[in-house]
Amino acid sequence: MDELRPRPPNSYALTPVGFLDRAATVYGDCPSIIYNDISYTWSQTHSRCLQLASSLSSIGINKGHVVSVIAPNIPAMYELHFAVPMAGAILNTLNTRLDARTISLLLCHAESKLLFVDPMYVSLVHEAISLFPPNTKHPPLVLIADDEVVSQQSSPTIHFYDTYESLVEKGDPAFNWIRPKNDFDPIALNYTSGTTASPKGVVHCHRGLFIVTLDSLIDWSFPKQPVFLWTLPMFHSNGWSYPWGMAAVGGTNICIRKFDAPTIYGLIEKHRVTHMCGAPVVLNMLSNSPTIIKPLKNPVHIITAGAPPPATILSRTESLGFVVGHGYGLTETGGIVVSCAWKRQWSLFPATERARLKARQGVRTVGMNEVDVVDPITGTSVKRDGSTLGEIVLRGGCIMLGYLKDPVATAKCMTENGWFYTGDVGVMHPDGYLEIKDRSKDVIISGGENLSSVEVESVLYTFPDINEAAVVARPDEFWGETPCAFVTLKEACCKSTTEKEIIEYCRARLPHYMVPKTVVVTEELPKTATGKIQKALLRDMAKDMGSSRVSRM
Amino acid sequence: MDELRPRPPNSYALTPVGFLDRAATVYGDCPSIIYNDISYTWSQTHSRCLQLASSLSSIGINKGHVVSVIAPNIPAMYELHFAVPMAGAILNTLNTRLDARTISLLLCHAESKLLFVDPMYVSLVHEAISLFPPNTKHPPLVLIADDEVVSQQSSPTIHFYDTYESLVEKGDPAFNWIRPKNDFDPIALNYTSGTTASPKGVVHCHRGLFIVTLDSLIDWSFPKQPVFLWTLPMFHSNGWSYPWGMAAVGGTNICIRKFDAPTIYGLIEKHRVTHMCGAPVVLNMLSNSPTIIKPLKNPVHIITAGAPPPATILSRTESLGFVVGHGYGLTETGGIVVSCAWKRQWSLFPATERARLKARQGVRTVGMNEVDVVDPITGTSVKRDGSTLGEIVLRGGCIMLGYLKDPVATAKCMTENGWFYTGDVGVMHPDGYLEIKDRSKDVIISGGENLSSVEVESVLYTFPDINEAAVVARPDEFWGETPCAFVTLKEACCKSTTEKEIIEYCRARLPHYMVPKTVVVTEELPKTATGKIQKALLRDMAKDMGSSRVSRM
Repeated sequence: MDELRPRPPNSYALTPVGFLDRAATVYGDCPSIIYNDISYTWSQTHSRCLQLASSLSSIGINKGHVVSVIAPNIPAMYELHFAVPMAGAILNTLNTRLDARTISLLLCHAESKLLFVDPMYVSLVHEAISLFPPNTKHPPLVLIADDEVVSQQSSPTIHFYDTYESLVEKGDPAFNWIRPKNDFDPIALNYTSGTTASPKGVVHCHRGLFIVTLDSLIDWSFPKQPVFLWTLPMFHSNGWSYPWGMAAVGGTNICIRKFDAPTIYGLIEKHRVTHMCGAPVVLNMLSNSPTIIKPLKNPVHIITAGAPPPATILSRTESLGFVVGHGYGLTETGGIVVSCAWKRQWSLFPATERARLKARQGVRTVGMNEVDVVDPITGTSVKRDGSTLGEIVLRGGCIMLGYLKDPVATAKCMTENGWFYTGDVGVMHPDGYLEIKDRSKDVIISGGENLSSVEVESVLYTFPDINEAAVVARPDEFWGETPCAFVTLKEACCKSTTEKEIIEYCRARLPHYMVPKTVVVTEELPKTATGKIQKALLRDMAKDMGSSRVSRM
Repeated sequence: MDELRPRPPNSYALTPVGFLDRAATVYGDCPSIIYNDISYTWSQTHSRCLQLASSLSSIGINKGHVVSVIAPNIPAMYELHFAVPMAGAILNTLNTRLDARTISLLLCHAESKLLFVDPMYVSLVHEAISLFPPNTKHPPLVLIADDEVVSQQSSPTIHFYDTYESLVEKGDPAFNWIRPKNDFDPIALNYTSGTTASPKGVVHCHRGLFIVTLDSLIDWSFPKQPVFLWTLPMFHSNGWSYPWGMAAVGGTNICIRKFDAPTIYGLIEKHRVTHMCGAPVVLNMLSNSPTIIKPLKNPVHIITAGAPPPATILSRTESLGFVVGHGYGLTETGGIVVSCAWKRQWSLFPATERARLKARQGVRTVGMNEVDVVDPITGTSVKRDGSTLGEIVLRGGCIMLGYLKDPVATAKCMTENGWFYTGDVGVMHPDGYLEIKDRSKDVIISGGENLSSVEVESVLYTFPDINEAAVVARPDEFWGETPCAFVTLKEACCKSTTEKEIIEYCRARLPHYMVPKTVVVTEELPKTATGKIQKALLRDMAKDMGSSRVSRM
């Protein structure tokens, strides 16, 4: 057997980029992208991506170069997921909600060679490049034209190297795209959302995103030619790799610049949407909307991840006709790698029990090698009792190569014992399903007891008047830390709910040490661009409060 | 970027074996295997495979060892697909229709360390080991117990080391199975069916079969928990990798020892079968059966490959309620890698046109890198005109490592230019779909013209009384070669059809040089165990005929 080694025909690099060539053959006449009045076929998308890749090559973009983009879910954003790697380069999508200072830092850190800018963000980019260190050249800018939004460019000092459409037009549709040399060539650079620390540059390779893309199609049993509504920002971990996945199954991508509940319901009906993704905040928006007058005509599959969804929101959304799947992934995994694989017999359970089961993150997807919850000190698996907290660890082909220019952070989580340490705290249930209890940094230690903020939140979410809730640690001279809850109330309710009522409600349902000692009723909770509540900010606020008291902001 | 290299968490070897661990968690209580009155759950299958792997380890089966099995599609055959690689070893399934001499040769060539034997094949194995070269030890034998078939062992000289069930019982269900060290560790050794030459030992690696398993699930849009009827022999290219695929989606494997049309229809109804695979001969059996009295209650997806299916058989099968998918693969690709991806608009075409389109092999699956049809001399792509013949070439992660102990044959087809040469001759249609015209060796060269035997056969299949047809070259002093047709007639017909009528029928429908100069009406065509017509044998018969004449056997 020993003479049998990999050879060129079987060791060609795995890559999700080639899905586009195939889509042009199989689905050439079928819609690839629909955006307002614009509609492309897979043939057109194929040609446009090759043209853009050809132009990128001809202006000097090369293997290993980083190409950045700041844009919402418009067609150009989708095309760049193919065109940039087709030029051999690395795609870096930037979160549109970042401030100018952070964008400036990220562009410098990534050493971007080119920056595509949506008209909406011209001022932001202008400010960002003004913050570049002296004598540092910023990347040339390319303006993405858009009929919907006219450039907000007011400053005469900003110079665009070219426009997106002009680069497409100039390119050669017969361009022989540049394939990765091996499985581990980088394809994407994604900065983490920074809920707990400063953004880190996650680098993924072609093999990793090939695996997670196929894995996600199997895990959610995608049919051929689904209609996919882009409610999940593509800048968020490359839209969980679904831009490539839709090319693999010839789906129709419904692009949208921004959305609210009526927009989503309108598009679902207009385009017969079959699939969408989003953080639990999207589910909340859909199920709390007063515009809903009738349930969905056809079931819409919605995959949620990014935060543990409260059971009440899950059951409300399902009652409207959405088929909710719940999974778990990180920027570092390129997509969803743990999912709540549903058992047939569970469908017979009462709604609250179904929701409780579905709120668990679940089991590894088939493409992942292993998942476990381990004791952070000893590294051994925790008891499968559903209550012993441990750190969630993963191994599998879709785990990132590492953090850009941060060997210390990379080595810390990508260990030689073969596990990737997620920094998420969870439990393993007796049936082998894991449930996230918290980010490591969100665990509250009160009187020596480790308590999960998420567990307190899930009780708060069952309080009828509460819309959203987040619990963080508040320093306490006696206990070390105590739970502090920030909540918003539903519009429909009269807002007479008092903090005291909320505390009493929790007392009846939680062990004493888990009951929030502080409750803050507020108008809005601070969130990241992807809808995650920014607990770091709330923690700072709790810290600034000083001693225990009940307050209204 | 350069400091970012593969690390243990992301470069763990890809393997399809781990799907079983996950199936035990997700589908633990659900049926994994049903065989007569035996039924296992995924928990049980998981435990049994670990137990067997543990026993294999304890008796000295190790990394790199070959473990052979000769058995039909019984539960043990399924379990060995996991248990053998879980012991770190390489699974070698043997074709049950081979003769003792060939089996003897293959066991020596493979240097098998252990041979599992179904009761049906005890005499065959006894004869095979009696043919071992003098002073050569044969592998220890393990008898697979089976309630349905009592051992046909008559010879007192054969010694069994142990029985299958005893090895399972003795094993440890908590065995820590031996994972591959890297992507390219071998997992399976499959001998080619030898339609054109002596069997070659195809070696596949874990990465390759991981890829083709996931790829096949996506390509055929497998749902969760399908019911899969094992009409395709698992010894044939590991059942196109579906043993592993069913663990990935938690399917129910309906095992059967042998089958005919009434058996299949009975099992479809009894177990609500959703999916099955088979060579076109299976489709022929299903659609020619006089026992069919009503169409299927629920659609059954049937994937056919292994030979180009005649359009008439395709349309007959579909009219009964089967949803036929047509693909193409080789033992060397571990599963189907080209498939006739169906376009929605084609469903509106008339039945004959639909069948013509579906008879084409199609486009590469998403998991494959590239497929092409090239000129065998220049190596460049042939014209996409649907008529220029060329050799089909492939590149992709599921292509074999190579042929065991045959570096010359390996180097010949696994070229440094990155293509695997299939030895199959095809055309590329203008729409990018390829169609196989022949095996290289089956092309007939008559008067300097290359003619495809399959094309002649497809005309013969439209002749109402013909059941099966195969065309081979017959030596001719003047033309070099001429087409010689071997045909069987349908039972229903009065068998008065003459060779002359058949030749005249062809003359009205084919260019003169393609019309068979010889037609042989026979009772049966020689076939391999997988239902492929053995053209090599027919070619020998044609050679023995001497000069042109019309004969009846």
